[in-house]
Amino acid sequence: MPPLRIAIDAMGGDYGPRATVTGTALALAERPNASATLYGRHHLIDDELSRLPATLAHVRERIDFVEAGDCLPVDMTPSRILRDVPSGSLHASLVALRDGEAKACVSGEHTGAIMALARRHVGMLSAVSRPAISAAIPTVSHRPCYMLDLGANVDARAEHLVDFAFMGAAMVRLVDNVSLPRVGLLNVGTESSKGERRVREADAMLRASGSSHIEYVGYVEGDGLFIGNTDVAVCDGMVGNVALKGSEGLARMLGERLQAEFQTGWYARVVGRLAAPVLRRFLQELNPVRYNGASFLGLRATVVKSHGSARAEGFAYAVRRAVDEAAMNLPDRLMS
Amino acid sequence: MPPLRIAIDAMGGDYGPRATVTGTALALAERPNASATLYGRHHLIDDELSRLPATLAHVRERIDFVEAGDCLPVDMTPSRILRDVPSGSLHASLVALRDGEAKACVSGEHTGAIMALARRHVGMLSAVSRPAISAAIPTVSHRPCYMLDLGANVDARAEHLVDFAFMGAAMVRLVDNVSLPRVGLLNVGTESSKGERRVREADAMLRASGSSHIEYVGYVEGDGLFIGNTDVAVCDGMVGNVALKGSEGLARMLGERLQAEFQTGWYARVVGRLAAPVLRRFLQELNPVRYNGASFLGLRATVVKSHGSARAEGFAYAVRRAVDEAAMNLPDRLMS
Repeated sequence: MPPLRIAIDAMGGDYGPRATVTGTALALAERPNASATLYGRHHLIDDELSRLPATLAHVRERIDFVEAGDCLPVDMTPSRILRDVPSGSLHASLVALRDGEAKACVSGEHTGAIMALARRHVGMLSAVSRPAISAAIPTVSHRPCYMLDLGANVDARAEHLVDFAFMGAAMVRLVDNVSLPRVGLLNVGTESSKGERRVREADAMLRASGSSHIEYVGYVEGDGLFIGNTDVAVCDGMVGNVALKGSEGLARMLGERLQAEFQTGWYARVVGRLAAPVLRRFLQELNPVRYNGASFLGLRATVVKSHGSARAEGFAYAVRRAVDEAAMNLPDRLMS
Repeated sequence: MPPLRIAIDAMGGDYGPRATVTGTALALAERPNASATLYGRHHLIDDELSRLPATLAHVRERIDFVEAGDCLPVDMTPSRILRDVPSGSLHASLVALRDGEAKACVSGEHTGAIMALARRHVGMLSAVSRPAISAAIPTVSHRPCYMLDLGANVDARAEHLVDFAFMGAAMVRLVDNVSLPRVGLLNVGTESSKGERRVREADAMLRASGSSHIEYVGYVEGDGLFIGNTDVAVCDGMVGNVALKGSEGLARMLGERLQAEFQTGWYARVVGRLAAPVLRRFLQELNPVRYNGASFLGLRATVVKSHGSARAEGFAYAVRRAVDEAAMNLPDRLMS
């Protein structure tokens, strides 16, 4: 079987090739069926490749690279992207995906930029009315909950929410091996009479669907996201985006406060030094490494966004996700 | 000046009189201009009053109580409440507010129940199109950010969002002494072309308003909530509700994980014992005591909801908030 090739935007994200090159190598070490082509500044990628640790030397032969310019200018808005269709590393990797040279693409660029260029180059599945962005969040049960949409759409209608429910469930079933995904609709309460009209309509449609592919669990409230009794939580992109970014902001603040607490007074400082390994383990939970990678569902091919602030380990997570989605032919089977 | 009387629903919330009686006394100790009437089960309230610590004996004379039945049945939905108008402690305290026997009301009942009964008994300000619920969230800057709406409305239109902006700003200006509140609109990005139509319309209306009472800062993203560069963050009730409850769920999960991390292995357990006072300080940040109290804006009189899981200290925070809002005549000045 020819290896499954992933197109990597090597320049996107806060750390560029410093994160993407090692991250890609780390992922390939765990996915022997995959290979990668890195798109970006030739000399920067080459430089990072030459510095790969010896433990990753065996994956080097599965990594190619192609000169493809830089990441997007920081002020590049989605509207400007659609107008100007800028060249560069993201553009080049999406074109490779479009032309069948790769089966999936990973980028650390901004969500809006990736979505705009991916829709243009890769296109949408005809059966899907709207694309959606999904990411996994950690839960108390240690089984992740996939939330969607996270901002591909605002003003989603009831039928879009229903599509998101089935797309999310298909992803979880195929890629994460959950045989009967539990799917919930985010709402302001669990009463059937509560909430936005579109959410109530989507609830009625999901109840009526009688699909044997999902276990529809009804409404889920915001705090329910982290409890782990639903595998897929469906909402409009505005709600999901604010809730997810809010969670990231809160986690960051709490991480800073925890560290500050261990700097306040001599006793706390001494204990803080002793507690450092334990705290480090905990702070790992707060950073975007775990479950890094947002899936763009509804496109004709697999596109995964890595968090802009991800380092090599986090980027590796996003690449593994892309490999796993592409290996399952997720886009083709999304509406099954 | 006659003392400012607060009607307390003594039975609402997870702990009933065990939290509300001491909580009320704690608040009165810090607000010498206020007195309170507790509504609920006579013997339970009397019992708790007799157990008040000696340090609170001096406020005892400012506390009355009135037999008023129990809290609402747990299965009492807002729709049933509107149909049946159940009696009990919440009903009695809102009737006292309506009849001018008190200037504010505090309850730990469910938001939907309080809102439904308060709209019925207390009524809405005629100048306000829709009521809104607001609560303060902690920020990195240690200056709170007030978010609204948190679920009084779903499907808010642009003009409602603008009303929320001015109501939130008036509250912060009058009660929290922020002379020129910075007001932002929650959105999926900071670009002017992005986001829901109603949010973009509200943005245009706020920019055009030229009000000298607020400093409109434009769009705020979810993670911006915790940064502290806005005093009031405005959104639809669906977005605010999911984001706030999501934050609560995340904080709870992280608190549990942090404690679990210090239980894993003998070294962590030993260090955990040494770190206990520092961790306790940190975990305080995660519980709903701090900034407890959601304000119902747009009603004819001050109504504050205490978090259901609040204990005495948390309840005291909500009572202080009610005293401060009533002392400023916030309802009358809300649309100024």
